[in-house]
Amino acid sequence: MLEFSERFITAANRYIETLRQEVNETLDLVSKFDNGCPPQLGDAVRYSLLAPGKRLRPLFVLLACELCGGQRQLAMPAACAVEMIHCYSLIHDDLPAMDNDDTRRGRPTCHKQFDEATAILAGDALIPAAFEMLAKMEPPELAVRCCRELAVAAGASQLVGGQMDDVLQERTPASPTQDFLERIHLRKTGALIRVSLRLGGLAAEGTEPQLEHLDNFGADFGLAFQITDDLLDVLGDEQDVGKRLHKDSEKGKLSYPAILGVEKSQKEAERLVNKAVDSLTAAGSKDSISFDVLRFMAYRLLNRKC
Amino acid sequence: MLEFSERFITAANRYIETLRQEVNETLDLVSKFDNGCPPQLGDAVRYSLLAPGKRLRPLFVLLACELCGGQRQLAMPAACAVEMIHCYSLIHDDLPAMDNDDTRRGRPTCHKQFDEATAILAGDALIPAAFEMLAKMEPPELAVRCCRELAVAAGASQLVGGQMDDVLQERTPASPTQDFLERIHLRKTGALIRVSLRLGGLAAEGTEPQLEHLDNFGADFGLAFQITDDLLDVLGDEQDVGKRLHKDSEKGKLSYPAILGVEKSQKEAERLVNKAVDSLTAAGSKDSISFDVLRFMAYRLLNRKC
Repeated sequence: MLEFSERFITAANRYIETLRQEVNETLDLVSKFDNGCPPQLGDAVRYSLLAPGKRLRPLFVLLACELCGGQRQLAMPAACAVEMIHCYSLIHDDLPAMDNDDTRRGRPTCHKQFDEATAILAGDALIPAAFEMLAKMEPPELAVRCCRELAVAAGASQLVGGQMDDVLQERTPASPTQDFLERIHLRKTGALIRVSLRLGGLAAEGTEPQLEHLDNFGADFGLAFQITDDLLDVLGDEQDVGKRLHKDSEKGKLSYPAILGVEKSQKEAERLVNKAVDSLTAAGSKDSISFDVLRFMAYRLLNRKC
Repeated sequence: MLEFSERFITAANRYIETLRQEVNETLDLVSKFDNGCPPQLGDAVRYSLLAPGKRLRPLFVLLACELCGGQRQLAMPAACAVEMIHCYSLIHDDLPAMDNDDTRRGRPTCHKQFDEATAILAGDALIPAAFEMLAKMEPPELAVRCCRELAVAAGASQLVGGQMDDVLQERTPASPTQDFLERIHLRKTGALIRVSLRLGGLAAEGTEPQLEHLDNFGADFGLAFQITDDLLDVLGDEQDVGKRLHKDSEKGKLSYPAILGVEKSQKEAERLVNKAVDSLTAAGSKDSISFDVLRFMAYRLLNRKC
């Protein structure tokens, strides 16, 4: 694994923090609904959307845009859109009929803080809000392409399909294989991460090969992210992570450590991170800050604390 | 009320049936998901989307397009999109945490036929599918405008906001007023009907004043539709309507008959239908089939059996 200097780590973290703050400020602005929106609904949307989070997907949008030579503000609507879709999927996944989770990002989940009906509706409201953001992009050709790509990634064959399979396998656990697990995660987590990178590239008018490389980076990063997430559930500290741990194993939930064991899971994450960085190198300028930061984010997965 | 000849009624119904069939065939085609979509999810989406329905909103899209001089096939993606949004909102509204309904269009509701998680996800999958449809429209300027308008209509201040207020008022019934009820329905039912007419007009490159008149037609039609729906719950025949009746009054649900009484509700519906037809007259050519059919559909509300 690549070693980063203390100085680089500080600078990279500061850069990430700047982008995260820009995203948070924009999300705050665009989630101030007019008075047609019932206060309780607006509160629930903002409670979930503005909760402290890593903002991984919007960061990818902005960094991919910069990597392809664009001004990151061009990609900000897309950054907000992917976070809105991510947020809706968390709200709905946490519902009693699905994963039935009580805490999320260190706070009560939306349906615990409000109630089930409100949580369902808050999620429902976030999906069109995401497409409204994308429809504001210029020129219209770009806006339409982004709408189409996000619609596919958030649709029945990707995000929602992955979650459906995840729910189904929890009910009737089959003999789990790595392939099966990958198939779920490539859709449930991977699709939205991949499209985040693509939308950023599109906003910068990146070439099709660039989009392809960014997409591959996203796919491998997404799987590595999931593996390290599963590892955190086994090895992590509950306070750092901000949610209840060991619930995967308690529920007998399919996970990489359960299939491969801890050590092989760590090796697999490492392999994927290296592959992701190769795609990144193929995608764009090695001399840019965004390249360094994306590579840093990939390697950092292997040392995740939260 | 205007009298229609038997011959006209037969012709109008045949025309409506033709359009409905075109819509059904297209919905069938566009809801065949690829193999990334788990069969159970695809089944649930198609079970709800292809259930026999009036297809009121898609009919409005197509007829408004024709009224503004466009070929209705231009508006077909928008027709499918509004039906997808309508269908998702029915699936989610029927959930136990919301209206808790067991039947819909004469069949078990989606969560009764499948289960709650599947119903939530089927609804979730339909929203991006709607925007994917719109993003296919040409030219991109039109696609983007349609995405924006549908996003607003399906968003926190309109469709979802109306449903939230409806849920909230059922829990803590305030002293009901006609204004309050209208405010709910203008968003819960009205927004999607209005945008259906607007999208049809947009597909035909209708003028802004035309869009405005179509919008007004939709707003008045939508309220009249809701009033006659409430009246059906009191006066209708369960077999004709295809869902359990008298549930509004059983639940103490806010309704026009409850506030105004049956007779005044009927008068109000009549007033709104006449106003809607005035807007229609202002919107477009009185010599077109689509004008006659839209007017017929408005007057027919006053004789609803289902």
